[in-house]
Amino acid sequence: MAVRYELIKTCRQSGARLGRLHTPHGTIETPVFMPVGTLATVKTMSPEELREMGSGILLSNTYHLFLRPGHEIVREAGGLHRFMNWDGAVLTDSGGFQVFSLSNLRQITEEGVSFRSHLSGKPLFISPEKSVEIQNALGADIIMAFDECPPYPADRNYVRQSMDRTYRWLQRCVAAHQRPETQALFGIVQGGMDKDLRQESVRQVTELDLPGYAVGGLSVGEPKDLMYQVLEDAAPLLPTDKPRYLMGVGSPDALVEGVMRGIDMFDCVLPTRIARNGTTMTSRGRLVVRNARYARDFSPLDPDCDCYTCRHYTRAYLRHLIKADETFGLRLTTYHNLYFLFQLMEQVREAIRRDRLSDFRDSFFESYYGPGEERRRGF
Amino acid sequence: MAVRYELIKTCRQSGARLGRLHTPHGTIETPVFMPVGTLATVKTMSPEELREMGSGILLSNTYHLFLRPGHEIVREAGGLHRFMNWDGAVLTDSGGFQVFSLSNLRQITEEGVSFRSHLSGKPLFISPEKSVEIQNALGADIIMAFDECPPYPADRNYVRQSMDRTYRWLQRCVAAHQRPETQALFGIVQGGMDKDLRQESVRQVTELDLPGYAVGGLSVGEPKDLMYQVLEDAAPLLPTDKPRYLMGVGSPDALVEGVMRGIDMFDCVLPTRIARNGTTMTSRGRLVVRNARYARDFSPLDPDCDCYTCRHYTRAYLRHLIKADETFGLRLTTYHNLYFLFQLMEQVREAIRRDRLSDFRDSFFESYYGPGEERRRGF
Repeated sequence: MAVRYELIKTCRQSGARLGRLHTPHGTIETPVFMPVGTLATVKTMSPEELREMGSGILLSNTYHLFLRPGHEIVREAGGLHRFMNWDGAVLTDSGGFQVFSLSNLRQITEEGVSFRSHLSGKPLFISPEKSVEIQNALGADIIMAFDECPPYPADRNYVRQSMDRTYRWLQRCVAAHQRPETQALFGIVQGGMDKDLRQESVRQVTELDLPGYAVGGLSVGEPKDLMYQVLEDAAPLLPTDKPRYLMGVGSPDALVEGVMRGIDMFDCVLPTRIARNGTTMTSRGRLVVRNARYARDFSPLDPDCDCYTCRHYTRAYLRHLIKADETFGLRLTTYHNLYFLFQLMEQVREAIRRDRLSDFRDSFFESYYGPGEERRRGF
Repeated sequence: MAVRYELIKTCRQSGARLGRLHTPHGTIETPVFMPVGTLATVKTMSPEELREMGSGILLSNTYHLFLRPGHEIVREAGGLHRFMNWDGAVLTDSGGFQVFSLSNLRQITEEGVSFRSHLSGKPLFISPEKSVEIQNALGADIIMAFDECPPYPADRNYVRQSMDRTYRWLQRCVAAHQRPETQALFGIVQGGMDKDLRQESVRQVTELDLPGYAVGGLSVGEPKDLMYQVLEDAAPLLPTDKPRYLMGVGSPDALVEGVMRGIDMFDCVLPTRIARNGTTMTSRGRLVVRNARYARDFSPLDPDCDCYTCRHYTRAYLRHLIKADETFGLRLTTYHNLYFLFQLMEQVREAIRRDRLSDFRDSFFESYYGPGEERRRGF
């Protein structure tokens, strides 16, 4: 099997799990945050920098790589790992989410989705078989089933139909998968925000005995409490010997809350995207370093951080670079934000090890968001 | 004295000089190429990367730093070196060239130059005293006299007037300079393309016994042969115990030809600017890696290069990144182009050491430009 999950222990203060994900490109300690390298690069970062800050697995986007440079070129290059010079693990999504969120004039049928490229307007078609074909060409260690991610809010009848179709698509993905010995195909649970639909989806999907499962259809605009409720509905029904992946989540609070509800893997563009806009995550909360107030602030971004950026550069320099659209500024804030989340996940794993994740959450939120809940927004 | 030039030897095959430039931030072997870090950053690069590829001195732009973030902020940060975390040497230009090439509605008087910011349109004024004040605040190891760089072609009478005014400005710069013990003020020879004016300018400027001299007003659109002729007119009159700096030159052929005419220092945005457009310098000549022909080319940019980019990445990957506007692609091409020029200068120094620079030029041009002269264009 391409990927094997090893459960080390469960936290006595929460549903959190400490584990290891064994892949053909290394073993990853979980819970883990995966940076997003949309176009076979984590924007502004080198592979060496990602390694240095503690990353063992990256996510890359099937939809984007299908458009540019095309999966055949990546296959000819020897797959994503060789193409981008990354010897760690890679996960590719199915392209489904981007087809629904980025492309125009899409039409969903039982067969698949017709859409137009958001770049060229060219008409394209992705089916479950096509998504798996692309992902087989890209060669990631973990590949995802092609699914529909309904919007929030959505009509219950629509969610039900969509969920059943996504399940039929999953069966087609399993049948189409050409490289199960080197690439692990994860199923995706859908079912919207309804407990009974979610639980039915979990039962459907887990029947197929796949190497891992994602909880999809969340972080699509619903309140965070509702997302947490859905995780509480779904996670306990997932098998304990398989990894659980919450897609598209990367805010510090949702990472901790997700882990407490039994999630092992996360990805999100949040830390890298906000970094390129001059917004950073620090031990004292969000800090928008491009703001004028930092023009003469010669202290580090986060006095409690020992990352490359915080060891060598001031807020004044970062602000200057970002105001002037200098790439190096984006490198520095991106580095810091990713480092911050890796450090957070390291602390989370340590707290699970010591059966104190609930205590850790309280003290982390107190420092990160300040007293009360009112600062817990923005991300 | 802030900067001391040590002449090691002169090549027997040319006028080339091998030397060392001793500065408060390290000793630099000359002839040297200085990368341009306009806004206190060499675009896309980290200081560690610049060190690793062999850079010991950077250039930064007074005009740009005056506008953003402002020289007072850099002074408060502890100067340019500390602001940008660069422990090597720094040279700042005077701002003169940018005032003439970038800003609008400029008016030159004996006192200085009135102009409008190319960013905000705000009216500004720089005099020789102001330029030196800004450069004293920035704190570079080498600072440049405020001069007018006349366009090419220019009327002889205008060049004469401008040259004389630039000389008076130089005297004012010398008088205004507050930190001669830590910052070396270089004078700039002007005089356009006329031999007698050039030689008169050299005599004027060298009378002041400054720690170094630049040959200005070249690489402004004149044919390269004319530039070489001016160097042949001017360089022999410059004192042998002071460094000679040719401003704004960075094409491989002009670097070699400039060295052969006795130049010790060069700077240019060329390698970094063309890199960001997907154009690279290789041992076989110019290579525009963004071209479609490289989409499936899985060989390195330059098979004879051992830089970070060439050791790890293919032309296909670079092309993909640059087509997709991915920053990491620009990092990789920038790294390569700078490395290429540092390697070239290392080879040039070795050829001077062995009294074979003329032979080296012939074999380098043969490989870089191919037989004949027709490929020697583009940069």
